[in-house]
Amino acid sequence: MFVSELISRPPLSRDYSRRTFPDHASPCPPLRSLPGIICHTSTIWENVLDLATPVRLSKGTMLYPDTKDRQPFFYLKKGKVRINKMDEEGKEFYPHYILSGSLIYDAFFLTCGQIPSMPLKMLEDSELHMFPSSMSFEDILSIHPHLARNMAYSQAVKDLAYSRLACINMYVKPFNRACIFLHEMYDIHRHGTFEPGVTQSELAMMLNMHKVTMANIISQLKREKIVGQFTKTKVSILEPARLKELGLKE
Amino acid sequence: MFVSELISRPPLSRDYSRRTFPDHASPCPPLRSLPGIICHTSTIWENVLDLATPVRLSKGTMLYPDTKDRQPFFYLKKGKVRINKMDEEGKEFYPHYILSGSLIYDAFFLTCGQIPSMPLKMLEDSELHMFPSSMSFEDILSIHPHLARNMAYSQAVKDLAYSRLACINMYVKPFNRACIFLHEMYDIHRHGTFEPGVTQSELAMMLNMHKVTMANIISQLKREKIVGQFTKTKVSILEPARLKELGLKE
Repeated sequence: MFVSELISRPPLSRDYSRRTFPDHASPCPPLRSLPGIICHTSTIWENVLDLATPVRLSKGTMLYPDTKDRQPFFYLKKGKVRINKMDEEGKEFYPHYILSGSLIYDAFFLTCGQIPSMPLKMLEDSELHMFPSSMSFEDILSIHPHLARNMAYSQAVKDLAYSRLACINMYVKPFNRACIFLHEMYDIHRHGTFEPGVTQSELAMMLNMHKVTMANIISQLKREKIVGQFTKTKVSILEPARLKELGLKE
Repeated sequence: MFVSELISRPPLSRDYSRRTFPDHASPCPPLRSLPGIICHTSTIWENVLDLATPVRLSKGTMLYPDTKDRQPFFYLKKGKVRINKMDEEGKEFYPHYILSGSLIYDAFFLTCGQIPSMPLKMLEDSELHMFPSSMSFEDILSIHPHLARNMAYSQAVKDLAYSRLACINMYVKPFNRACIFLHEMYDIHRHGTFEPGVTQSELAMMLNMHKVTMANIISQLKREKIVGQFTKTKVSILEPARLKELGLKE
């Protein structure tokens, strides 16, 4: 699927006049994103989804950005998306993940197309909302300054997420990278048990190692009773301090 | 030097009323930043430096962020700054560089202190302008919406710069990393000869290799007539296509 195919579909409304938002719609929500995994940065956009075109894409669908100049940005209301660089031969590498409650292609929008955009792969059945490519930053401001502020906030969170991922991937040994990442997960959730948002294989791809390597590392951490479990829906960390220590030991 | 020591110094003015900017003050200037090297994202802030406290710091000075809650952000008018993570023992690693015409600590400002800020090292005599920590996003909007837009733009550029650095640092061999980076430099400058903004040693630190390794790679590229020179002030790339090819070959 190509973005240009979606662009002909009209949004539900074009009412850019000033709106009132409920108090709980914060432009600066608590930080939930992890290195390379962006989530819950932008629930405020739920208040303006009538200005967007809803797009449902099923698991496995690829979405290729093929519009020059003005690239529309999306809000991911439900689902999970992988965003990838591709090399000349179409091989995917350096993935990162976008989970629900986040903007997509906002950096491309904010730089007026100076940043080349990358294809998206739906990892789950996903519900995206595409804002019109004719909508400007000034339009966004006119609807509510909090939207503009949240866009800047979302970018700041991505800065953090990508710079931390770069930092983790500087460690040569896969074991270090896995331990540091698991400790970051613990740190963000502030709790020993949480939903990881990514599978072991997805994490392996992001941390630049084979999924068997990742599986072996998790098994070792389980044997040493540092990690309790790591399934698709639940991770439990038993010894966070030990995990950090192992991560930094070269 | 600590940020808290600077905070008592008042700004020149506190006039947050709406201003007119000259036409050339674009909120979205042409992209000049490189992976891990941020520059010229924000010249628009030159129009509001009276709202900031000027701070001159000489080469070698460290600036440590020690203010909780609201971290002031800075505009770097002149000079060059390295921003570092530090490990438990104070060892610096994973640097990136900020060159003149850029904001510093804007991500910390935008996330209301949810992102821990890192120390700065002046690599040259630098002229920073510290905006008051009492200044809010709404104040910035009231002065000129372009300032808010530029703040979002600056963040988007940093996203790109950090995610590309993460991408380059996924290559295990130092030779790949150096070639890809040099090709990115060529790509951004759109010219074979340019000022690099960083020295060979600074680049080595950023790409996670010893400076001798970097020097050897540059020598090899010179011998093969792919790179003409790499001094502090001038880099010339003779064979960009070959550089890219070598960079991607594993």
